[in-house]
Amino acid sequence: MDKQTILKLIEEVLRETNAHTCCQDGVCSDNLCVVHNKEGVQNVVRSGADRISAGIGVSGESIDSAIASMIDHTLLKPDATVKQIETLCTEAKQYRFASVCINPSYVRLCAKLLRDTAVKVCTVVGFPLGATTTEVKAIEAERALQEGAREIDMVINVGMLKSGEYKYVENDIAAVARAVKRHGGLLKVIIETGLLTDEEKVKACLLAKNAGANFVKTSTGFTKGGATTGDVALMRKVVGPTLGIKASGGVRTHEDAKALIESGANRIGASASVMIVTGEKTGLGGY
Amino acid sequence: MDKQTILKLIEEVLRETNAHTCCQDGVCSDNLCVVHNKEGVQNVVRSGADRISAGIGVSGESIDSAIASMIDHTLLKPDATVKQIETLCTEAKQYRFASVCINPSYVRLCAKLLRDTAVKVCTVVGFPLGATTTEVKAIEAERALQEGAREIDMVINVGMLKSGEYKYVENDIAAVARAVKRHGGLLKVIIETGLLTDEEKVKACLLAKNAGANFVKTSTGFTKGGATTGDVALMRKVVGPTLGIKASGGVRTHEDAKALIESGANRIGASASVMIVTGEKTGLGGY
Repeated sequence: MDKQTILKLIEEVLRETNAHTCCQDGVCSDNLCVVHNKEGVQNVVRSGADRISAGIGVSGESIDSAIASMIDHTLLKPDATVKQIETLCTEAKQYRFASVCINPSYVRLCAKLLRDTAVKVCTVVGFPLGATTTEVKAIEAERALQEGAREIDMVINVGMLKSGEYKYVENDIAAVARAVKRHGGLLKVIIETGLLTDEEKVKACLLAKNAGANFVKTSTGFTKGGATTGDVALMRKVVGPTLGIKASGGVRTHEDAKALIESGANRIGASASVMIVTGEKTGLGGY
Repeated sequence: MDKQTILKLIEEVLRETNAHTCCQDGVCSDNLCVVHNKEGVQNVVRSGADRISAGIGVSGESIDSAIASMIDHTLLKPDATVKQIETLCTEAKQYRFASVCINPSYVRLCAKLLRDTAVKVCTVVGFPLGATTTEVKAIEAERALQEGAREIDMVINVGMLKSGEYKYVENDIAAVARAVKRHGGLLKVIIETGLLTDEEKVKACLLAKNAGANFVKTSTGFTKGGATTGDVALMRKVVGPTLGIKASGGVRTHEDAKALIESGANRIGASASVMIVTGEKTGLGGY
């Protein structure tokens, strides 16, 4: 896909994003806003329920106040300690982040610490290389859900995608999607944009959608590249209004998050979450 | 551990390494060479069988000719394609590397391509973050062994080590060790030196040894730091002569490999393996 096509897509997507704010002036050009697109909303509700309120510009809610509820407060470094995970959960409760996103060995601990709160436990599967087997990814998801995870961020098999093994990639996602569905959870599929051509990004989004993903997600944050507004706009264009988009990898400031949301993201993965919502350099930012 | 202690240890280890070449002049100062330390050799044979011949300076074999048989020819990048994996296997057969080290989703393919050759299939577990659950690590190893892997490189749970949860870390390794033992395989335990203090490196080596590892390994190559001669010497000092040491992460030249072997390593993990043995910039080096 050439630069010009991408730019055209982005422009189109931005137009659509503006349409979401129609309720402010009472005009809805293409019925894509959360007020007029009832079916789309129902699909999203089925996928992620309470996060519809995070919609931009609806009911006069500004991005600034909605942003915390869109953030997966993330600590995936291999050397994260029990104490740091405890702090992460405390911050998530305090700032009302959507979830904490942590490695599988901390799911039990977080589920315990966040019991009876609105903060979900999100964990990762096949992370960050995406190159474990389908069977192991499905088992990993199943166990995490049993232990209290409500959201699963899985990585696609990038090598297989690049080898043209599309059926493999789709089945790989579908196996995890089945486990997630059984538990009434939410599946985000990381396509690792930094390693893909634009054609591969489109293909990966379509495979994820077909396989039953609830969200597509840009990046793991562990290989080159991270979330860009261009990629988010492209992904939104491909998956349409009914799937979520999580932008992650290198999101460090309020401005980063705002730009990504304006491009079509409705979830942000960040470690610098407290800084993003407060503007202050505090909390676990940097981990 | 202070710098001086480390230097003393390294000096001591280098003296021991020299003792390994005793057979060249017929003097064995402390019976640590492969000729005089029969029990040690038997232990290593039980752990890795045919790699005893890779010993340095024994029977006049030079490092240069032995080096290929000590290399795990490695391609763990998430975007590695089927074609690149095929090339990796071809190179491994041509240069007689110890193994190919690949991600779990390529184990079946490599086992098929390397059937009836001396090149082993090595794969990774809980890689590269080490933060999946113990149960999933054990299942991942079990399945990989069933699919044809003969060697498993697992990552310890670094966060738990740093939290002082030593029993967790030991059990985590032991669960994988049991699966590996059942299949007569070889277990290398990656301690991820770049994230650890010297005290933590020592502790991790002891836990791995207690839990039944056959090798300790320096690095994943995916987080900061890589193999250093100081770390290898320290690890050799801690685990003694009966366990293997795999140096990996940033090993790019013949000189790198030689220095690490002289410090106590008897396995090298590298992607630039062809360049290391031929001095030529060919093959998959860089992947």
